[in-house]
Amino acid sequence: MGVVIPLAGSREPKASLQLLFDLVGDDMAGVNHIIMDKARSDVDLIPELARHLIDSGGKRLRPMLTIAAARMCNYDGEDHVQLAASVEFMHTATLLHDDVVDESDLRRGKKSARILWGNEASVLVGDFLLGQAFKMMVDVGSLEALRILSDAAAVIAEGEVMQLIASKNTETNEDEYLAVINAKTAALFSAAAEVGAVLAQRPKAEQAALRSYGKNLGIAFQLLDDVLDYSGDQDQLGKSVGDDFREGKITLPVVLSYRRGSDENREFWSRVLQDGDVQDGDLEQAISLLREHGAIEDTVERARHYGFIAHDALAIFPETNYKAALLDAVAFCINRAH
Amino acid sequence: MGVVIPLAGSREPKASLQLLFDLVGDDMAGVNHIIMDKARSDVDLIPELARHLIDSGGKRLRPMLTIAAARMCNYDGEDHVQLAASVEFMHTATLLHDDVVDESDLRRGKKSARILWGNEASVLVGDFLLGQAFKMMVDVGSLEALRILSDAAAVIAEGEVMQLIASKNTETNEDEYLAVINAKTAALFSAAAEVGAVLAQRPKAEQAALRSYGKNLGIAFQLLDDVLDYSGDQDQLGKSVGDDFREGKITLPVVLSYRRGSDENREFWSRVLQDGDVQDGDLEQAISLLREHGAIEDTVERARHYGFIAHDALAIFPETNYKAALLDAVAFCINRAH
Repeated sequence: MGVVIPLAGSREPKASLQLLFDLVGDDMAGVNHIIMDKARSDVDLIPELARHLIDSGGKRLRPMLTIAAARMCNYDGEDHVQLAASVEFMHTATLLHDDVVDESDLRRGKKSARILWGNEASVLVGDFLLGQAFKMMVDVGSLEALRILSDAAAVIAEGEVMQLIASKNTETNEDEYLAVINAKTAALFSAAAEVGAVLAQRPKAEQAALRSYGKNLGIAFQLLDDVLDYSGDQDQLGKSVGDDFREGKITLPVVLSYRRGSDENREFWSRVLQDGDVQDGDLEQAISLLREHGAIEDTVERARHYGFIAHDALAIFPETNYKAALLDAVAFCINRAH
Repeated sequence: MGVVIPLAGSREPKASLQLLFDLVGDDMAGVNHIIMDKARSDVDLIPELARHLIDSGGKRLRPMLTIAAARMCNYDGEDHVQLAASVEFMHTATLLHDDVVDESDLRRGKKSARILWGNEASVLVGDFLLGQAFKMMVDVGSLEALRILSDAAAVIAEGEVMQLIASKNTETNEDEYLAVINAKTAALFSAAAEVGAVLAQRPKAEQAALRSYGKNLGIAFQLLDDVLDYSGDQDQLGKSVGDDFREGKITLPVVLSYRRGSDENREFWSRVLQDGDVQDGDLEQAISLLREHGAIEDTVERARHYGFIAHDALAIFPETNYKAALLDAVAFCINRAH
């Protein structure tokens, strides 16, 4: 664990998380242990609800970034495990609040917490997890890591509010949409990766490199998520195809299709997303418009663009197995089944 | 500002916040300035909503505790102003989420934020304020203060979940109810006072004394709040008499009256609070039962008990004007109009 084996030279990244899983497996067992421990409370509802979400099989990509980034930076302590767990708690808290705001019924293929326990419990348990996340960061005691992660917490909330306002507004443009996902998704990816370098007390340039890697990976990840909602394999996706559509969410494929479409097409998008008047066959119609306007392929192209930036950001680090795993993660995010 | 004038000897506390207002006025102007500054965001909805709540005329008792505690401890820096602002943000975030959970229509006599901007915005702006609160604490850079305040954040959320579960359960007993208000109210009062000693780097005993003062003051404050909901002056209260009653909230007056009542009385409480079946004249009936069972007076008596503990907790500090103001605050909390 933690031995960084230099690679002979650069290799082509694989669109797979396998190397990452293999390298961070032991550390992630520690992360999972802390997560279970810190979700405990004498108030039974808290661990019940938290575990429902924690057990529901997310990939835990964000805490893996913290672990791999710290290890790539030759960090040989144990605090990265605690920080990674706090990153996952921040993410989980956001999911709980998101579901309330979006009125989502499903999360990763299971009934969402708000359906099972109510909106009230979801709001409050989210607050609890956020409080625990900060406690864990404080335990680690790095003020720089605290600064980065608390900045992210405020930015994420700001991004969620931006999304709430942009939500259902079909006139949202690409820059406005990017500002939203920069805040609501990329900020945590970015912070998760950056704190790895902070723990290892690496120079500012390496810290900035990991920040940039995380940010651009996060944008690529979110754009593919948007694509998968219109083209994914339902079982693999863990959410229904068309969830964003039914919730009236404006995502990049829609932004592109709306701008490229005819007046009649725009009336369609406004009716279904803005007015929420969704009829039988509308999802099929939406998918057909997205394909007609090249909106799916071009969103993937945009994601590829950010993926390249993430890839190049890591160039200053020597070729190691951890670096290879982080580059694979970029390829994985862009090439997810669609 | 910040000059601690020793008093000749102990004086009788006054049930007034005037001395406190006078002493902390300059520092509180700084707190208000920071609050306005940190509620800013390019996302217009955030400052709009935050200011609605911030301007709505709360007493700002919690940040005043931080200011006065730090000054009583001879702290001569400026960080107490920033920490006090973060305490107020934590409180404001809690109010926003509380209103969503309780489905409250009024807050301090004005329409609640959730009525004006919706539940979604209230949840997310609460998250933003909490993130800003942590950023401000991190800026101050005291890990001990961060530990105390992040502990409080987790405990408050835990208390809110406990209240959610206990809510509408008329069999809640006094100990269970105390556990709820200890967590949801007293934890922040306690942390707000304690961090004053932490900033001033005072010995552990003084830190513990301020922690105990804050906790017991918080309990007394909450108990009087419960009393005022059944007996207060509506204009002074800023909320309607009977709000807790209509929301089915179990508070100490109800706990006492339920235990002391006849089977018929208990059926009444269960019908209105548990089943939510409130009819014309029920509030008057409730108030009459509370009076009959001495539940109002005895809740005030209980509050007085915690007030004495808060008062005695400060005994180890020399007699100064700041100490006198903190003791006055105890008397004020217990003797609020009812």
